[in-house]
Amino acid sequence: MPSTALALINRPSAAAAEHKPGGYAFKLVDPAGHHLSVLDLGVTRGDGIFETISVGFGTPQALEPHLRRFSRSAASLGLPEPDLAVWRTAILAVLAELDPAPEAWVKTVMTRGIEGDGRPTGWAYATHSGDFTAARTEGIRVVTLDRGYRHDVERTSPWLLAGAKTLSYAVNRSVLREAARRNADDVIFVSSDGYVLEGPTSTVLFRRGNTLITPGTGLGILEGTTQGSLFELAAQRGMRTGFELLSPDQLAAADAIWLVSSVRHAAPIRELDGAARRVDVELTAAMNDHLATRVS
Amino acid sequence: MPSTALALINRPSAAAAEHKPGGYAFKLVDPAGHHLSVLDLGVTRGDGIFETISVGFGTPQALEPHLRRFSRSAASLGLPEPDLAVWRTAILAVLAELDPAPEAWVKTVMTRGIEGDGRPTGWAYATHSGDFTAARTEGIRVVTLDRGYRHDVERTSPWLLAGAKTLSYAVNRSVLREAARRNADDVIFVSSDGYVLEGPTSTVLFRRGNTLITPGTGLGILEGTTQGSLFELAAQRGMRTGFELLSPDQLAAADAIWLVSSVRHAAPIRELDGAARRVDVELTAAMNDHLATRVS
Repeated sequence: MPSTALALINRPSAAAAEHKPGGYAFKLVDPAGHHLSVLDLGVTRGDGIFETISVGFGTPQALEPHLRRFSRSAASLGLPEPDLAVWRTAILAVLAELDPAPEAWVKTVMTRGIEGDGRPTGWAYATHSGDFTAARTEGIRVVTLDRGYRHDVERTSPWLLAGAKTLSYAVNRSVLREAARRNADDVIFVSSDGYVLEGPTSTVLFRRGNTLITPGTGLGILEGTTQGSLFELAAQRGMRTGFELLSPDQLAAADAIWLVSSVRHAAPIRELDGAARRVDVELTAAMNDHLATRVS
Repeated sequence: MPSTALALINRPSAAAAEHKPGGYAFKLVDPAGHHLSVLDLGVTRGDGIFETISVGFGTPQALEPHLRRFSRSAASLGLPEPDLAVWRTAILAVLAELDPAPEAWVKTVMTRGIEGDGRPTGWAYATHSGDFTAARTEGIRVVTLDRGYRHDVERTSPWLLAGAKTLSYAVNRSVLREAARRNADDVIFVSSDGYVLEGPTSTVLFRRGNTLITPGTGLGILEGTTQGSLFELAAQRGMRTGFELLSPDQLAAADAIWLVSSVRHAAPIRELDGAARRVDVELTAAMNDHLATRVS
């Protein structure tokens, strides 16, 4: 059995025409093949949406929150509503193809398809995960970078798609190159009016005393599915949880900070803008244990 | 002969490995086929660059300015430098495949390729143009929309890639849907600090008396290849030309305004934010004649 699998979705949205009328719901194909047109708006315009869902011991984690966010992203972009029943089935089918492994992930993508064609393109791709042990235990070095947008842009200018998970992620990649130039591993975006937002592919979480806090949604940032799971863990441990709009200086004053995401899980920040930080080893381990063994 | 043609580039950058070692420089393939992997960073992250070059009576127009901008975009994104000799040859080859037509365009795309593969993906796609007569003669209705960024973001935050022509164009498409909701055809972006920038796929040009003016570069906006050609025309007609940072109110006070771009050419604005405007019929016609018959 392989370490990767790919399903092409025949009808990613019930509201749009199928690619093969009356045909299959999805089709398993060779992930190394060519299955996409260079005319697809997903590549010519980055015009589409995605989710990356972690898989622990064969089970997709936080699947329903991911699918809900997939639907919200589609609505933001004016894409037809994903047929979630089809997506769920395709996700389970690609996962059934994989060799058993403790950690994998599956990515769902829906693009606007070929211009004028009226049919979105969809696929689900699954692969075994890389080894994130170092990031999860030793921690990561992070720099803060201007995202350019004010913190309230999601409300004032919804056409900027802040808060939607789109394929237009060139900036999210570019900031990682800037981080590398600054001898760092990852980034925390700061709004142009000075508020802590999120990482390019992660949510910021911090501990102050017995409270676990995140900047929260409505700031043009993504609702973190992993953050949701970790708030549940915090409640189990008798911690409080909360949302707080704060400056980078206020963040630096926290007792511990993490970037949390579906696949890398909880990465403690051991250096922020060049200043060394203490890692909360015990809580970090509890977070990563919790995330590794989630069953929903 | 067909109305579309596609060439896959084997070695889009001399600094990176070929897709088929020792093989062809490029290969003409069926444009309707599937030639792209769903793992290509061009689609998964919108991580790549493009140019759209107009073709008048078989001749690519402003080819060298387009290729120079292609190289600058590559540098902004930290992509390997395009091998322009290969691109030039491939562009001419796809154009030679097309049925003769007064207007066509060719799009060049270079993506970062498949993650970890170290080879960019490249192709050149050519097609006959649509009919833009109505936009060029009757004009277009335009609304101004916030772009979210300050006008100086290209200097303060180069990692935001403002001024590079990337595949991450979801916002450039989203604003057209917002324009349609406002009964308009196109958009002029305004910076968060209130300056006129550019259209999502065009440059703003306006006339004040005998002077043709554009907001200019260095504002996180693209250097307009079409604008460059029209400044040459203005000089031939004894007009002055200039660059000016200005507010939407100042723009509205201009004698005439256009959105100019490679394929649609000069589209006069007949309505701005709901207010009707006078179209400069004579100068518009001269612009479009000039653009249709350029030979370089």
